[in-house]
Amino acid sequence: MSAAEAGPRWAIVVHGGAGVIERQQLTAEQERAYRDAMRKVTEHGAKLLSAGKPALDVIEATIGLMEDDPLFNAGRGAVFTAQGRNELDAAIMDGETLKAGAVAGVTRTRHPISLARRVMSASPHVMLMSTGADEFSRQQGLEQVEPGYFYTQRRWDALIKYLEANKLPVPAKPTGIQSEDPAKGLAHDEGKQGTVGVVVLDSSGNVAAGTSTGGTTGKRWGRVGDSPIIGAGTYASNRSCAVSATGTGEYFIRLSVAHEICSLVRYRGMSLQAAADEVIQKQLTQLKGDGGIIAVAPDGQMAWSFNTSGMYRARAAEGQPVTVGIFKDES
Amino acid sequence: MSAAEAGPRWAIVVHGGAGVIERQQLTAEQERAYRDAMRKVTEHGAKLLSAGKPALDVIEATIGLMEDDPLFNAGRGAVFTAQGRNELDAAIMDGETLKAGAVAGVTRTRHPISLARRVMSASPHVMLMSTGADEFSRQQGLEQVEPGYFYTQRRWDALIKYLEANKLPVPAKPTGIQSEDPAKGLAHDEGKQGTVGVVVLDSSGNVAAGTSTGGTTGKRWGRVGDSPIIGAGTYASNRSCAVSATGTGEYFIRLSVAHEICSLVRYRGMSLQAAADEVIQKQLTQLKGDGGIIAVAPDGQMAWSFNTSGMYRARAAEGQPVTVGIFKDES
Repeated sequence: MSAAEAGPRWAIVVHGGAGVIERQQLTAEQERAYRDAMRKVTEHGAKLLSAGKPALDVIEATIGLMEDDPLFNAGRGAVFTAQGRNELDAAIMDGETLKAGAVAGVTRTRHPISLARRVMSASPHVMLMSTGADEFSRQQGLEQVEPGYFYTQRRWDALIKYLEANKLPVPAKPTGIQSEDPAKGLAHDEGKQGTVGVVVLDSSGNVAAGTSTGGTTGKRWGRVGDSPIIGAGTYASNRSCAVSATGTGEYFIRLSVAHEICSLVRYRGMSLQAAADEVIQKQLTQLKGDGGIIAVAPDGQMAWSFNTSGMYRARAAEGQPVTVGIFKDES
Repeated sequence: MSAAEAGPRWAIVVHGGAGVIERQQLTAEQERAYRDAMRKVTEHGAKLLSAGKPALDVIEATIGLMEDDPLFNAGRGAVFTAQGRNELDAAIMDGETLKAGAVAGVTRTRHPISLARRVMSASPHVMLMSTGADEFSRQQGLEQVEPGYFYTQRRWDALIKYLEANKLPVPAKPTGIQSEDPAKGLAHDEGKQGTVGVVVLDSSGNVAAGTSTGGTTGKRWGRVGDSPIIGAGTYASNRSCAVSATGTGEYFIRLSVAHEICSLVRYRGMSLQAAADEVIQKQLTQLKGDGGIIAVAPDGQMAWSFNTSGMYRARAAEGQPVTVGIFKDES
């Protein structure tokens, strides 16, 4: 039996964002809340995969859970733009067909990852942006919410702090706020970034990747980060691997991080971990970018790599129970 | 002297879009108009490069000329969205630093390529979209024009034809139209796509790439094509090459075409032409995508590759006069 054939039939790796995440900053309750959330999502994905569900369904279901969870900067709990809005980005990619879908700057869709999937499956396009993407979402009948649905007090506080530091005017709060603090004081601020992402190998041998984010606190001018950029924050190909990234998105775009990792696997024959480390620990670090990635390969290899003090991360595979990590010194 | 040292000190390759461009469709006057336009742009770039101008300046100057020319789908002469608007995309990338700038869906900036460069140099971001990008453009003092500045009769006619075929409502014409046909009947419709792009090697040994487009006739929902996606339609690195693409953008995004060509050069050691052909003639064609690319490498290699019936293209280098091509059977 070759090394490849010996790998698990299915695998899942999840991230909840990389950034300044250190032991002394998290209370025991916060740490437990994040570990529980990461475990819950990964267990759900593992259950679906072990039941034979296809990769794209697992991506959509697991990222949807994280978009609903106010602990993470995606969907509910997303950071605010300088204008006091939540403008959400997401992408999904199918490693079997190389089909992909992405949205940037959507404001009313509860699950941006589902919208990205709909762009992939129900439009001739790969990427839609802004009000046009919102319109497509309504036409497709995806669940729409009031702007205030995404509101959390801690993200609003982070915005005010950012605006004051940058001498920018403070906008009105969004309409339709449902709860001041749905995260009940447990959310930790990982810096101005944050993203969620999932990569999976399904039992048919197909890989897929998905990423969803609110972007960066106080973003202006319609800034688009790496998450919805196919090749930068999200990529998947059965010829190489599936990758989802989190971090200072501009650097991930400049390096085409996700596609670069896949290229090193495919054209240099590197192991997935070596390729991930080459891009994150060397290329990204040299450029002074911060963040990390998760990855999975069709032969069952799993990897993560980050150059920040922490990254919320978890993984599981056939025959391998869920493991969860937050800080740098965990395996 | 090694092969690399024997190459020209500077080089430029230009495209004006790929698509259905066949001999029997172009009048002698149209063919002459396109050849003259391609030659003029390339000669201008060659003059700047031979005078020692840096790569980014040459990209901005030459693409600016093409954005002003109503023959091409970029700036003035851009195609219309389903709502009767011109929503322009552009990107620029510096191979020396890997810095990049991109805009999607801007509506009032005369030279989107200059705005992309300003995003790179004057903002902390790589990509801005939609109304936010328009706002950044105004704040930066870039030349703003009336929506009708971009208007050309032939692109409006193409939109009406598209809307009628798709049973979509016909919108009002834009305000501020300056001339019904600034191209004086010489413009040819290359299909629903079209893009302009330039790649250069400057005499300091740096490569750069730029791309600018109006996208596709009748585009909806804020569709973003490959041109402003760093890694897909535009990429540049002194470690490998600089690439600008044109074609059915969705396929170029799915393959990360520009970055993939650079990966084959860097990690497989392929010649630039072999890498370009591998991606366009094999990968893109297998996926049923249409279009082409131009590329240049730091050692002076130049390449183009396309799988359509034509691509407006030209090149020049130190010691090599301008050559211009349109149809498939030209060298």
